[in-house]
Amino acid sequence: MIVSIVSTAQQAQDIDFSGKTAVVIDVLRATSVITTALDNGAQEVIPVKTVEEAQKLYAASDTSNTLRGGERYALKIEGFELSNSPLEYKTKVVEGKSIILTTTNGTDAINNIKGAEQVILACFRNAAAVVSGLTRFARNEVTIVCAGTAGKFSLDDGLCAGMIIELLKQKTEIETDDLGLLLNRFYNESKNNLLQALSSCFHLKRLFTLGFYDDIRFCLQTNCVATVPVLHNGRIIKLQTL
Amino acid sequence: MIVSIVSTAQQAQDIDFSGKTAVVIDVLRATSVITTALDNGAQEVIPVKTVEEAQKLYAASDTSNTLRGGERYALKIEGFELSNSPLEYKTKVVEGKSIILTTTNGTDAINNIKGAEQVILACFRNAAAVVSGLTRFARNEVTIVCAGTAGKFSLDDGLCAGMIIELLKQKTEIETDDLGLLLNRFYNESKNNLLQALSSCFHLKRLFTLGFYDDIRFCLQTNCVATVPVLHNGRIIKLQTL
Repeated sequence: MIVSIVSTAQQAQDIDFSGKTAVVIDVLRATSVITTALDNGAQEVIPVKTVEEAQKLYAASDTSNTLRGGERYALKIEGFELSNSPLEYKTKVVEGKSIILTTTNGTDAINNIKGAEQVILACFRNAAAVVSGLTRFARNEVTIVCAGTAGKFSLDDGLCAGMIIELLKQKTEIETDDLGLLLNRFYNESKNNLLQALSSCFHLKRLFTLGFYDDIRFCLQTNCVATVPVLHNGRIIKLQTL
Repeated sequence: MIVSIVSTAQQAQDIDFSGKTAVVIDVLRATSVITTALDNGAQEVIPVKTVEEAQKLYAASDTSNTLRGGERYALKIEGFELSNSPLEYKTKVVEGKSIILTTTNGTDAINNIKGAEQVILACFRNAAAVVSGLTRFARNEVTIVCAGTAGKFSLDDGLCAGMIIELLKQKTEIETDDLGLLLNRFYNESKNNLLQALSSCFHLKRLFTLGFYDDIRFCLQTNCVATVPVLHNGRIIKLQTL
């Protein structure tokens, strides 16, 4: 398996994903939110780029069964039912619901991927399940897209990519690129204390300043859910085969 | 000083460098070649994108005073006087000469930078001199462009960026981004054996396979020259103020 790393959502726009499996990571917090929502029984998550698109789609939906979630500048969007905190996406809130989600980087990264055979969403919480899925059905070429923050590489996404590479290495023979090598090394040095390893990470520091301690702790928990979100016709659903 | 990292020559195209100092790194081998050529007395190095441009410029030059150098697929270009091996750029060959250079990534990275206040070229061999220059005359925002290989991040350039960040930190207060933090950490872990740290690096392995052992060894020598190449009106000359 050949594993390449793309370091920002923006860079993903220039990549030809034909015949490849794409894995999108936005640890803080979009892919952690989506994984949690589906794990807690949400029917689907629809990723959209803008608040306007989200509102338009909501207006055309069965609103009794639909929730709007996401963030701008890390904060809840006015009028939306949910923010971008995974802790809000509890079973009693999301079960059976369709969720329209718009975030600054994560949903952008997902929507920027064109032509991939499969698009899978990963975070620390489902990393082992994602790897288990990848070894069973992924194409030989896997591109991990680290969503990043404000157009820049973000260490939290990179550390999760490094973890996925490590778990893949334990299951199959892989070849990765220079960024993959560096991130895998970083993960192996940091796996006993992810929070400490990310203490200088720009995006984590910002969320910390805003008081999102519980979100950060939650998003850095590893391998606690078996849910693997996959993109299917513009909607993210739970992979049923696992 | 704010220090940002750009991970490929291609990415540099999308960056607004206005008001910033750009530092281009292509350790293997363009910026090592240019530093060596100027250090050994070349009058200037003119970076061009294509072989055709190089030939056209050469045809219009005083050919008795001009040399063509560079590579395609790491190898010498047919009809050129020099390859992309820094070992060829000896004083007796390059002294007083104008050198037209075209390489796959390094000269591309230099030409992709638009609008920067200053463009400086760095490699392991002149890292300390570059840092000394930066602390004296750089703008407050410095963007380090790692040229990369075939559109991808290359660990050799990243390790050199990590070294420059470390040397800057020892001289002034700096703020860097997540990739800068990671590369600085990697350099600090690797500084006692750069070759070993880069043993899995894709580009280094390719040059090794082609037999360029001496080039690799030469390019990984640190702080052995005081020459700082700067771009001035499309020509690279030796910074005279150091």
